[in-house]
Amino acid sequence: MGKPFAARVGANENVFGPSPLALKAMAESLKDIWMYGESENHDLRAALALHHGCAPENIMVGEGIDGLLGYLVRLLVEEGDAVVTSDGAYPTFNYHVAGFGGVLHKLPYRDDHEDLPALLEKARETGAKLVYFANPDNPMATWSKGADVLKALERLPEGCLLVLDEAYIEFAPEGTAAPIEIEDPRVIRMRTFSKAYGLAGARVGYALGAAPLIMAFNKIRNHFGMNRTSQIGALEALKDQSYLGDTLANVSAARQKIAEIASENGLSSLPSAANFVAIDCGQDGAFAKAVLDGLIKRGVFVRMPFVAPQNRCIRVSCGTPADLDSLAAALPEALAEARTS
Amino acid sequence: MGKPFAARVGANENVFGPSPLALKAMAESLKDIWMYGESENHDLRAALALHHGCAPENIMVGEGIDGLLGYLVRLLVEEGDAVVTSDGAYPTFNYHVAGFGGVLHKLPYRDDHEDLPALLEKARETGAKLVYFANPDNPMATWSKGADVLKALERLPEGCLLVLDEAYIEFAPEGTAAPIEIEDPRVIRMRTFSKAYGLAGARVGYALGAAPLIMAFNKIRNHFGMNRTSQIGALEALKDQSYLGDTLANVSAARQKIAEIASENGLSSLPSAANFVAIDCGQDGAFAKAVLDGLIKRGVFVRMPFVAPQNRCIRVSCGTPADLDSLAAALPEALAEARTS
Repeated sequence: MGKPFAARVGANENVFGPSPLALKAMAESLKDIWMYGESENHDLRAALALHHGCAPENIMVGEGIDGLLGYLVRLLVEEGDAVVTSDGAYPTFNYHVAGFGGVLHKLPYRDDHEDLPALLEKARETGAKLVYFANPDNPMATWSKGADVLKALERLPEGCLLVLDEAYIEFAPEGTAAPIEIEDPRVIRMRTFSKAYGLAGARVGYALGAAPLIMAFNKIRNHFGMNRTSQIGALEALKDQSYLGDTLANVSAARQKIAEIASENGLSSLPSAANFVAIDCGQDGAFAKAVLDGLIKRGVFVRMPFVAPQNRCIRVSCGTPADLDSLAAALPEALAEARTS
Repeated sequence: MGKPFAARVGANENVFGPSPLALKAMAESLKDIWMYGESENHDLRAALALHHGCAPENIMVGEGIDGLLGYLVRLLVEEGDAVVTSDGAYPTFNYHVAGFGGVLHKLPYRDDHEDLPALLEKARETGAKLVYFANPDNPMATWSKGADVLKALERLPEGCLLVLDEAYIEFAPEGTAAPIEIEDPRVIRMRTFSKAYGLAGARVGYALGAAPLIMAFNKIRNHFGMNRTSQIGALEALKDQSYLGDTLANVSAARQKIAEIASENGLSSLPSAANFVAIDCGQDGAFAKAVLDGLIKRGVFVRMPFVAPQNRCIRVSCGTPADLDSLAAALPEALAEARTS
């Protein structure tokens, strides 16, 4: 619309930003930006290994989860191979699968949750190479217990890998991260510095998994693909777990505030384990879209699920108090407008 | 070796760094690093279009030339397809070709130049999909006239694309850039902010070519792969052509100094159109390797070509005066050592 949004609460970015220590290190590192980054991401992987209690060989750093998903699909999916995901789950995964000629099988959500047992059953039925499952989910912010995910894995068919996308895991309740043995060959986990660590613009994600799978990325990845400043910023952000704690508190407060705003407008919202909240607009997708349009028109950038019945909701990222004041001001008008249109 | 090199003149990085205006803009942009970069690289492509006198649709920005070469190979090369390059030319191109199942045909250099007519003849003979040609060349820093490149294209077989890697073009004499019509479907040109613009650590490259080919990258690329700060830094670096002029002067002086150092040691060096110089060590590859090892041992990081007879040379990047003083101090010792070993 030619002007910045009053509230940018649509892309699940983390407005609370990265640790000041990360910002400081990145600023200081700019003078060395004429040098290539280190191709093995050695220091960051060493720190992540310490953080997760595994070896650097269990960690692959890449250009965001998007980049890593592309590499993973390339490694495992050939023309015509079956791949299973949920209808309405992360579209970039589907993009990569389609791009490498895989055949997607999409299952509906169950009660606004990605339905892992059904996904695994479908994987068995189709001989899938790959199953995608996000925990917490995007766009609904629902979650499964980590122990349940581990248990469900017993039904993973031979020759199939589970991609467990944990981009939002830091925001989730204790026990949501699945207690998976690092060398378990059935699962690869995706993590990111884009969400809780506030570094979306820096493009740093990492995969956690069994060393043979993780090291296979080295056969195909862009070895000098990582930004030097981003490597440094991610390392410092990881070290500052105290700031991460502050962020989680800020996000938690914002989630509560969004739920209150929904409630004040007679709407319910879904419990959230992520840095966004799905507000149930109470009618169909066309109505939610009208509400969304009304918000955007009023400078509040939000998004919405694109598959029914999840598309009865709008998805609001955890903004600053000022962002959420904008939401609180715009939502009644947007709702009224949607109801009369 | 556990300590930083006294002179980092091995990776063809640009020690003179990016424009101070680019550094300033990048530093200021860090506060917004919590936001994703813009997925279309709109502003940078618009500025590049203006700079090159073409449309934004003729420009694809990506994660360095390495990233773009990967996308290009994926777009054009299928299992078993022939691809032609020079033996000893850019290995990352070969890596991508092998990674997508292409069959590489490598031709020797001719008089230390990549031999474009021979490459095109080989392409005809093998039915190649892709021919790689760098101008200026790396690792020899030799070059062809742009008009000759254009003329040679007449022999490009139908169904074959020339990848013209112009990573070092800004350092080359007037007339080295081939005068190719932007919509010429026979060529895609690769450019970068890693060399003359001093932003290697930021990972920004771009491809120039006919709109249908350039837009095809959108079907497969990592749409949110670009670092937000890098997008901003590249844009500001491009705008500061005055600083680029200073860099070219600095690089030219360094090239001359490296040639002098070689000469003072009784060695010849090749004329260079890039930001590095190939010093002919005057014997075989084993001898040049001994010289290189001697330099590295003395804290001077250099590299060398890995195919005979080019591997009679060592490759020295244009460093600061202090870097080149280190080279001048270390080279006589390294040579003496190599001669007695």
